[in-house]
Amino acid sequence: MLIQEGSGATVGEARLRVRYAETDKMGVVYNSNYLIWFEIGRVELMRDLGHAYREVEEDGYLFPVAEVTCRCKDSAVYDDEILIHTRITRLRRSLIQFGYEIFRDSDRKLLATGMSTHFVTGRDRQKRQLTDKYMVPFERAVGKVAGPPQ
Amino acid sequence: MLIQEGSGATVGEARLRVRYAETDKMGVVYNSNYLIWFEIGRVELMRDLGHAYREVEEDGYLFPVAEVTCRCKDSAVYDDEILIHTRITRLRRSLIQFGYEIFRDSDRKLLATGMSTHFVTGRDRQKRQLTDKYMVPFERAVGKVAGPPQ
Amino acid sequence: MLIQEGSGATVGEARLRVRYAETDKMGVVYNSNYLIWFEIGRVELMRDLGHAYREVEEDGYLFPVAEVTCRCKDSAVYDDEILIHTRITRLRRSLIQFGYEIFRDSDRKLLATGMSTHFVTGRDRQKRQLTDKYMVPFERAVGKVAGPPQ
Amino acid sequence: MLIQEGSGATVGEARLRVRYAETDKMGVVYNSNYLIWFEIGRVELMRDLGHAYREVEEDGYLFPVAEVTCRCKDSAVYDDEILIHTRITRLRRSLIQFGYEIFRDSDRKLLATGMSTHFVTGRDRQKRQLTDKYMVPFERAVGKVAGPPQ
Repeated sequence: MLIQEGSGATVGEARLRVRYAETDKMGVVYNSNYLIWFEIGRVELMRDLGHAYREVEEDGYLFPVAEVTCRCKDSAVYDDEILIHTRITRLRRSLIQFGYEIFRDSDRKLLATGMSTHFVTGRDRQKRQLTDKYMVPFERAVGKVAGPPQ
Repeated sequence: MLIQEGSGATVGEARLRVRYAETDKMGVVYNSNYLIWFEIGRVELMRDLGHAYREVEEDGYLFPVAEVTCRCKDSAVYDDEILIHTRITRLRRSLIQFGYEIFRDSDRKLLATGMSTHFVTGRDRQKRQLTDKYMVPFERAVGKVAGPPQ
Repeated sequence: MLIQEGSGATVGEARLRVRYAETDKMGVVYNSNYLIWFEIGRVELMRDLGHAYREVEEDGYLFPVAEVTCRCKDSAVYDDEILIHTRITRLRRSLIQFGYEIFRDSDRKLLATGMSTHFVTGRDRQKRQLTDKYMVPFERAVGKVAGPPQ
Repeated sequence: MLIQEGSGATVGEARLRVRYAETDKMGVVYNSNYLIWFEIGRVELMRDLGHAYREVEEDGYLFPVAEVTCRCKDSAVYDDEILIHTRITRLRRSLIQFGYEIFRDSDRKLLATGMSTHFVTGRDRQKRQLTDKYMVPFERAVGKVAGPPQ
């Protein structure tokens, strides 16, 4: 699902339910799972923007992770319904950065925020440039569409 | 490490320590991790028999799982040192079956037993026959080497 | 979602999408993830029968896995939409067994089948008996309700 | 294993082998696994400093993650032997920060670096102060031991 912000940016909203396997003996979601949820967030954003990540790979691209950061503010627990809000926060033909917010749906509590930066490469892992097929919808989502003053 | 049993069979012994990420909110190891430990068991057995699974794949084979079973007898907990005993329990050129026992090292308590059956295929996922390079050491491990009475 | 079979049994249908993290270098879903999907299947069946597993634990019960089996028939790949069909296949006050079928949604291809058997215990991991609160809806789902001929 | 640096800091070295389950369809280790490896790094450092994390929890402490960052420089692949170097990079009675370097053992290539910051809490998730039992060995590892010039 896409949400249009007043700023012109597009936010993708993905939804999931915490799995038992994602909890740890502290009784909360183990931190590495947030990175998997970030992936769900960016994949669903891309799908809603018209190009599933499956298609990105079919077109010969890979988006390997260069850097990822997660700040944990509160804990998700088993069976929580989770919302992942994802934005494209930086975009070049050779690099994409996503920002994430993870909420518990029931009380809209912010549980974690994060960021991931991805290189754009070919299957040979060499740098490659994104074509307009991807740049145009991605740029529109950043909210930086060239045009008359808004 | 290889252990020779009186029966003539060879048992591979692998060792690992329970990770925090492998526990769940019940305070014990989540069941799907046993299947990952089984993989460690068979991979280390193959390595000790002379052919790491990495080499199997380099030779163009895959051993996809056809069936896997796990019986949980007791729980592994965080930080336990675990021993995995792996045997080749059935062997054809087109199929390998492994048997597993998972022990806690400190008290040698049996925590789980299991079995996995694997097809032998090529990278195209079509059935393929194992050559003697693999059959000879694997058969020796089963303890069913053809030959004069021993 | 619940599906009523002609036999009188109730089938729970859960749905998920394959995560990148669930794939392995063979390009398909790594086998241990099927056990996590089985958990999703039984949890959603229980929720649809009126009692989320979260509630089961709040009532002081645990359903630790005694045995789990998975037969892999075909491979799930990245981004596939997956359906999990779950049935209660055996029920006693001290034991529950679930049966699973995993389908790819797009072509309804059966990818895997499985079974898991769970003990009913208290938080102290000692055997405990399920009360009617759970037995009545669970028995109804098995399709073996005592009563006049139907 | 502990390594003493010229600076006076102590580096913990942990070792592991890449599991098949940790790879993804890109053929390399999926990024969230680095966070699990970071955990192994800090746990083994603490053990080598005299206090396993299991003991930390038995003493009523938890070290929940406040923030974690990972920079990926190169890819780990299946079956690689991995070294994790862990340092305590910041220490207060209420907060511990660890720094990580992940190397491939065969060619000592740096694959990733990272950092995690942890709150010190009690089981009730309320802030708590580390006692000298932990502060003394941890401070020594930071390389900031009070004393005569060295």
